[in-house]
Amino acid sequence: MNLENLKGLIRDIPDFPKKGILFKDFTTVFKDKTALHELTEYMASMYAGKGITKVVGIESRGFIMGPIIAEKIGAGFVPMRKPGKLPAETWSESYTKEYGTDTIEVHVDALDENDVVLLHDDLLATGGTMYAAYLLVKRFNPKKIYVNFISELLDLNGRALFPEDVEIETLIKY
Amino acid sequence: MNLENLKGLIRDIPDFPKKGILFKDFTTVFKDKTALHELTEYMASMYAGKGITKVVGIESRGFIMGPIIAEKIGAGFVPMRKPGKLPAETWSESYTKEYGTDTIEVHVDALDENDVVLLHDDLLATGGTMYAAYLLVKRFNPKKIYVNFISELLDLNGRALFPEDVEIETLIKY
Repeated sequence: MNLENLKGLIRDIPDFPKKGILFKDFTTVFKDKTALHELTEYMASMYAGKGITKVVGIESRGFIMGPIIAEKIGAGFVPMRKPGKLPAETWSESYTKEYGTDTIEVHVDALDENDVVLLHDDLLATGGTMYAAYLLVKRFNPKKIYVNFISELLDLNGRALFPEDVEIETLIKY
Repeated sequence: MNLENLKGLIRDIPDFPKKGILFKDFTTVFKDKTALHELTEYMASMYAGKGITKVVGIESRGFIMGPIIAEKIGAGFVPMRKPGKLPAETWSESYTKEYGTDTIEVHVDALDENDVVLLHDDLLATGGTMYAAYLLVKRFNPKKIYVNFISELLDLNGRALFPEDVEIETLIKY
């Protein structure tokens, strides 16, 4: 896959969701059938052969690529959602955002200690959401946890939140 | 695919999201790698060869199967989201729910008149959300619109909202 072509398809939206933030819009990638196919093939090839049993996607943008990768590498898909959205018993983890806190939840029977987990979201910025997701997955004591994003804002250094032995992969770095 | 096996994997959650509603939980299907694979292969085979260019998924549960089907049949994926979530210019449509109204949005450049569209969500209940989604897609004047759900609650007769020439397919009927 040509990463420069992919980068060219990502749309910059100034001042979204608020003034001063340059939002990276991936909908212009997902609606392009060739880009969607090449991106998912590439990401699946990164994780094929690692024995991954479950891909965990973070609501909502992590739900788009996460399930495709899961299906391509022969894994199941687990959604991690905002509070009150998952219907059965959940575990939750809260994290600090710029203003206030946010919480994500996962079903208590979503994973177990035999799983090899790939955590996926679209963008690594400050990393707060993904770190909360990582802590939630850790509670299941899985064999291994991989972390994956389509892209990463290097200046925000979200990687610094994670232990050094966690393999974090991003395709496009800004 | 054995639809009875699939049906057996769907989890019933009583009184969710509120008392008296028996919620159909598909997370127990999605986390099962074999079920996820068989379900997506089956749904992709239903729509292969129809010239579908875009699959539109409705936030959030329509984001899980929608992208996999899109990728498998060689289409792009378009998210239809809750208000304020899509970063570029949008069209929106409001619809009545039991208490008050709800709104969904789509980017104004997500589709065009050359598209053949498959609209996907997990469950057809009263049909209000999908009918609003259908009206949004109609504004683009695409060549054809197909509508698809994993399952359907027949008693609620959500199909009655749609014109007779709209092809609505559901795998599992309750």
